[in-house]
Amino acid sequence: VKGLVFGIGLDVGGTFTKIAAVSREGRLLALSQVPTEPGLGPKAFVSRAVDAVRALESGMSGKARSVGIGAAGEVDSRLGSLRFSPNMRPFKGFPLRDALSRALGRPAAMDNDANMAAWGAFVVELKRKVRNMAAITMGTGIGGGLVVEGRLFAGSTGSAGEFGHMRIVPGGESCSCGSRGCLEAYAGRRAIIETAERLLASGRRSLLRPLSGRLDPSDICEAADKGDAVGREVWSRVGNALGMGISNLILLLNPDVVVIAGGVARAGRHFLKPLREYLRWEPFRRPFIHARVRVARTDNLGALGAGLYSLEVSSRR
Amino acid sequence: VKGLVFGIGLDVGGTFTKIAAVSREGRLLALSQVPTEPGLGPKAFVSRAVDAVRALESGMSGKARSVGIGAAGEVDSRLGSLRFSPNMRPFKGFPLRDALSRALGRPAAMDNDANMAAWGAFVVELKRKVRNMAAITMGTGIGGGLVVEGRLFAGSTGSAGEFGHMRIVPGGESCSCGSRGCLEAYAGRRAIIETAERLLASGRRSLLRPLSGRLDPSDICEAADKGDAVGREVWSRVGNALGMGISNLILLLNPDVVVIAGGVARAGRHFLKPLREYLRWEPFRRPFIHARVRVARTDNLGALGAGLYSLEVSSRR
Repeated sequence: VKGLVFGIGLDVGGTFTKIAAVSREGRLLALSQVPTEPGLGPKAFVSRAVDAVRALESGMSGKARSVGIGAAGEVDSRLGSLRFSPNMRPFKGFPLRDALSRALGRPAAMDNDANMAAWGAFVVELKRKVRNMAAITMGTGIGGGLVVEGRLFAGSTGSAGEFGHMRIVPGGESCSCGSRGCLEAYAGRRAIIETAERLLASGRRSLLRPLSGRLDPSDICEAADKGDAVGREVWSRVGNALGMGISNLILLLNPDVVVIAGGVARAGRHFLKPLREYLRWEPFRRPFIHARVRVARTDNLGALGAGLYSLEVSSRR
Repeated sequence: VKGLVFGIGLDVGGTFTKIAAVSREGRLLALSQVPTEPGLGPKAFVSRAVDAVRALESGMSGKARSVGIGAAGEVDSRLGSLRFSPNMRPFKGFPLRDALSRALGRPAAMDNDANMAAWGAFVVELKRKVRNMAAITMGTGIGGGLVVEGRLFAGSTGSAGEFGHMRIVPGGESCSCGSRGCLEAYAGRRAIIETAERLLASGRRSLLRPLSGRLDPSDICEAADKGDAVGREVWSRVGNALGMGISNLILLLNPDVVVIAGGVARAGRHFLKPLREYLRWEPFRRPFIHARVRVARTDNLGALGAGLYSLEVSSRR
């Protein structure tokens, strides 16, 4: 389409960077992927990303109006750089946003990848039709982002929506963050696999037994699809843990919608029922009756959201 | 002062209603109190409140620009009425805001009492110098309110900041709401008294023993002042429970400040240290380093906040 306004979004992870061209309404126009290779340094990454963006645009009529970056780690969105990222240490402090903006000659915005996924869910999945929303991203870790009164709310230092480390069980399972009892220690990727392995170790019959030692959440989802009791039990526990975290989230924020996104959320058909069952028994009724909990139906929300957010920010200026 | 702009705030509780005249900067200009007497119905209350407001104004030069109402219960701030209030059932559905506005000939605003106290803390205690703040009110129950990007955030149905019923211990102590393990079941007035009674029942020596059966949090605070081990233990447990709730709050909202207000907060000198100690060990550092936790130093924040909020809302129109 000639003259179509679109943005480019980069979802920068420790291994791969996804690049999406997205229309203002949230339609995915084109998608590509490059390796991030943090070890080669941020300048090499910028030139690789710029080439990929240009390649993506060459197949389209027109250039993106703006570029958005969602990065895995603690982002200083004011400076447009990473403060801390366990998987992209060489990027720390590098002015990624401004380097990309200069190289491409376009305005750029940068935020945490989970915040960008939340914005993506808000625009693409909810068509901006709600005021208040929380997105929970389930991947290796559990993250999230908030939309408050129709705007992305990143908190005072950019880390609002850190759902993964909310404590749901005092003194509970140990978490990768060094603490105990975090939601991530019950519903993160590693926790999901460990729960399955423990059930297998207890001697239960399961389709998963031959896969022990190299299980992945998608295997556990497939087993549950086939009615496997261990698979079902794992997702029931995940749903219960999510219920505990989301219950506190609803009491605190009283949102319209909670969207669960990320690769692991594909198992929603197995964990949504126990999750909703948990919330159904909350005595403090109204905010729970009001809030809908759903699983995102769109892939690549991080890259889509970053592109959309860059359009939002550049149009506000 | 001639021509001074001020607002009137009413903090409507089940027993008493406090009425404050407050300057735009948050200075308390005058204060009075009337019985609420919900049993006599909302119309009788309105005429009593109107008389009290006029009496308060008669001692001042000029009339209030606007009137704000903070009410204990679930408030529909759009309609300006109570949806539900266990202690003021006859007020349910009555258009309290519009009735007061009409009788006084001034614009009026109405919200939940804890939200109004949060706004009071934001203006009076923090002089609007932060962007994001949570207030926790410790009284009979535990409530709270949020200020997000300098604005009161009440959530989608008006109940954001329901800190008291955040679950801190799954399957823990039973709570007045019908659930278990809520923060209120560990740090609400009744829980504080029960903790002390249980410690006394275990046979420990304590200055509180003669007061058993008719303990009040202020007695437990005084005992702790005198070094009483039972008194100190109670507040240490309260601090720990608050730490668990506030930790989740900080991870979710990443605020600049958490203010603890309400009558029970006067024991802050005993519970702030264990509370801060709890937060100090959170591995997810930055939001915890950033957020300051403090106890409110101002009384009547609910009434002050209601008056201030009415000025805010009427000036925005």
